[in-house]
Amino acid sequence: MADVVVALGERSYPIFINTGIIDKPATYEQYIEGSKVFIVTNEVVAPLYLDLVTKALAAYEVHTKILSDGEQYKRIATAETIFDSLIEQRCDRKTTVLALGGGVVGDIAGFVAACYQRGVPYIQVPTTLLSQVDSSVGGKTAVNHPMGKNMIGVFYQPRCVVADTNTLDTLNDREFKAGMAEVIKYGYIRDIEFLGWLEANIDKLLSRDKDTLAYAIQHSCQIKADVVAQDERETGLRAILNLGHTFGHAIEAATGYTQWLHGEAIGAGMAMAADLSHRIGWLSTQDNDRVVRLLECAGLPVKPPGGISPERFLELMSIDKKVDSGNVRLVLLPQLGQAELIADYDIGLLNQTLRHFST
Amino acid sequence: MADVVVALGERSYPIFINTGIIDKPATYEQYIEGSKVFIVTNEVVAPLYLDLVTKALAAYEVHTKILSDGEQYKRIATAETIFDSLIEQRCDRKTTVLALGGGVVGDIAGFVAACYQRGVPYIQVPTTLLSQVDSSVGGKTAVNHPMGKNMIGVFYQPRCVVADTNTLDTLNDREFKAGMAEVIKYGYIRDIEFLGWLEANIDKLLSRDKDTLAYAIQHSCQIKADVVAQDERETGLRAILNLGHTFGHAIEAATGYTQWLHGEAIGAGMAMAADLSHRIGWLSTQDNDRVVRLLECAGLPVKPPGGISPERFLELMSIDKKVDSGNVRLVLLPQLGQAELIADYDIGLLNQTLRHFST
Repeated sequence: MADVVVALGERSYPIFINTGIIDKPATYEQYIEGSKVFIVTNEVVAPLYLDLVTKALAAYEVHTKILSDGEQYKRIATAETIFDSLIEQRCDRKTTVLALGGGVVGDIAGFVAACYQRGVPYIQVPTTLLSQVDSSVGGKTAVNHPMGKNMIGVFYQPRCVVADTNTLDTLNDREFKAGMAEVIKYGYIRDIEFLGWLEANIDKLLSRDKDTLAYAIQHSCQIKADVVAQDERETGLRAILNLGHTFGHAIEAATGYTQWLHGEAIGAGMAMAADLSHRIGWLSTQDNDRVVRLLECAGLPVKPPGGISPERFLELMSIDKKVDSGNVRLVLLPQLGQAELIADYDIGLLNQTLRHFST
Repeated sequence: MADVVVALGERSYPIFINTGIIDKPATYEQYIEGSKVFIVTNEVVAPLYLDLVTKALAAYEVHTKILSDGEQYKRIATAETIFDSLIEQRCDRKTTVLALGGGVVGDIAGFVAACYQRGVPYIQVPTTLLSQVDSSVGGKTAVNHPMGKNMIGVFYQPRCVVADTNTLDTLNDREFKAGMAEVIKYGYIRDIEFLGWLEANIDKLLSRDKDTLAYAIQHSCQIKADVVAQDERETGLRAILNLGHTFGHAIEAATGYTQWLHGEAIGAGMAMAADLSHRIGWLSTQDNDRVVRLLECAGLPVKPPGGISPERFLELMSIDKKVDSGNVRLVLLPQLGQAELIADYDIGLLNQTLRHFST
C-alpha cells in the first residue's frame, strides 16, 4: 500500500499504512532517537498488541502505561498519572512516547509528549479505524474538560504514524462503525467522487474487505494530510475537518463522555449539520437525504440521544474552539463535497434544527 | 529606555522596559486581538497593580484569576483552576491571557495560554526583578512536578513583555535579591565586562538606583534575547542560561518549593557550579572566589540549606531536563564570562562538590 506524507517542512512525517507492520523493528527504528521508549496504551489494546510492539522494540528500554478504556478518561488527571510514570522511570528528553490504541490514547499520549520536559518525540500507532483515518494524523493533541471536548491541548506533530490495518480485525462492530463516520466525513466535505465510491462500497467496507478498507484509509489520510499541510494550526481551511463536531462535541459533553463513542456523536452531528445546511438553502432535500442515508447504511446514529434540550445544546455549543467573539461558528455544506466555516447563519434556523432533533 | 526585541521570525516580540507603562492603554492595545483579556495574577500583586492594569484595559471585557502566592502553587492543580475559570467566562481562542506578577504567575499563565483551546495569545507583565530579567522572556512555560522543577510545560512565546521598572519599588528585599541572582548569572555565562560592571555597581543596584537598575535589566534582557533568538528550543546554546539550575532545582524540589525563592536556590547553585568548575580545572581559585564574593555582596546564599545529602542531591539532579541517556549534564564555567554544557566531567569531582557543600 502507498504511504502518505504530511508535508510540514521540518516537521513533515510519514503515515505508514499496511498489514503486518506493527511488530517489525524496522517500522520504528528510524524514528526513535534515544534508548528509551514509553508506550501509552489501554486495558483493551494491551492484551492484543502490547507484546507484539514491545518485541519489535527489543533494542530499547521499554516502559509501559496502561490506561483505563474510554473517553471519560481523556482528562488531566489521567495525563498526570502518565507524567508521574515518566518521571519514576527517569525518562529524559530523548525518550520516545509511543501511543498504541485509539483516539483517546493517541490524543492524551500526544498531549503528554508535547508537555513532558517541554516536548519529547512521539509515535502514533493507531489501532482503531477512527484513529487511523483521523485522530492520529495532524498533530492535534488534547484532553477534555467536563464542560467541553478537547479544550486543553496543543498542536504537536508525531515523528511518524504506523497504521497496521490488521489491527482492525479485532475491532468490535460498534467501534468500527464509529470510525466510518470520519471516513464518510471526507466525502461530504472534500470529495464528491469519494462520496459516491463510499455509497457504492459501504457494504464491502462494513464486511471489512481488506482491499476496499485499505483504499478508504489511504484516501482518507491523503485528504487529511492535504488539509493539514495547508493549515496546520487551523487558522482557516482545517476547520472543515470539524463537520458535525460542534453538534457532536455537545452530545459528548452532555452525556459525560460515557454514552456514545466519538464517531457516533459525529454521525449524529453531521446529520444535524446537513439539516441546517438544508435549512439555510445550501443542500437540497435530496442531498440532505443522501447524507442521512449513507450514515444509516453505515449503522451510525442520525440524531442525538433524547434528553438534550435545544437550550442545553446551545449552551454546550457556546464552549467550542470555533467560537469567535461569542459567536458559534459552524461547518456547513454549501454542496456535497464542499464545506465552509460560517458565522453569519440565521440563528433562528439553528434553533429550528435543534428543535427538530430534540423531539 | 531602549526596548529589546526577541527575534524569532514570525514569533518575534518586543520587551518594553520603562517606568510608568503598566497603566497606559497604548502599552497593550497593539497586542490584543479579540475583545476579552483574562488576567492571571496573585494575592500579593493584585492589591498593588491589578486596578492599574484593569483600568488600562477599559476598552476590553476583563476577567481575573487571583492565585495564591508561592512556588508551591506552580502545579497542575492550579492550572486546572485557571482552565475552569476561562471556560466559565466563555473565553474563546481570541481571548488574550495577561500574566501580571513574578515568575510563578508568568510560567503558569503562559502554560495555560499555550494549552487553552490549543493556544491563545498572551502578554507578560513581569513585576519582579527575576521575571523582568529572565522568566518572562523566551517562551519557557511550565508547572512543577513534586519530583522536579518545570517538568511539565511547553515553549510558547508571548506577544510582548511589559516590564515597568516602577513595580520593583514594591518588591521586598528578599525578592529583590533573589532577582539579582539571574542578573549576575548573565555576567558569569556571557559577559565578563558586565560582570565587572556588576561588581562595581552592586551597592547601587541593591539600593535600587533607578538608572543603574534600568541598565542592568535592559542589558540582561538583551543577553537573554540574543541567546533565545539563536536557540529557541534549547537544542544547544540556550542551556547555558541554566547555570546553577540543576543544583538549584534540586534544592527547590528537596525543600518542597516552599523554603527558598527560585533566585536564592540559583545563587547557591551557581556557587556549586563554580566550585565544580574549579575542581575540574576550569576556574582558578581566584575566579571561584570572585563568583562567591559577588553572590555574597548581593545578599544571596552561597551554599544549599542543610539536610540535603549528596545522595539526595544526585537523585534529584537525575530528574533534570538536561539529563541525556541517564547522564546528568551540567552547565559549568570554562572561564568567567563563558559557559558550557558538559556531560563528560569526572563524577568523582561532582561528588566532592556535593560533599563539600553538604557539610
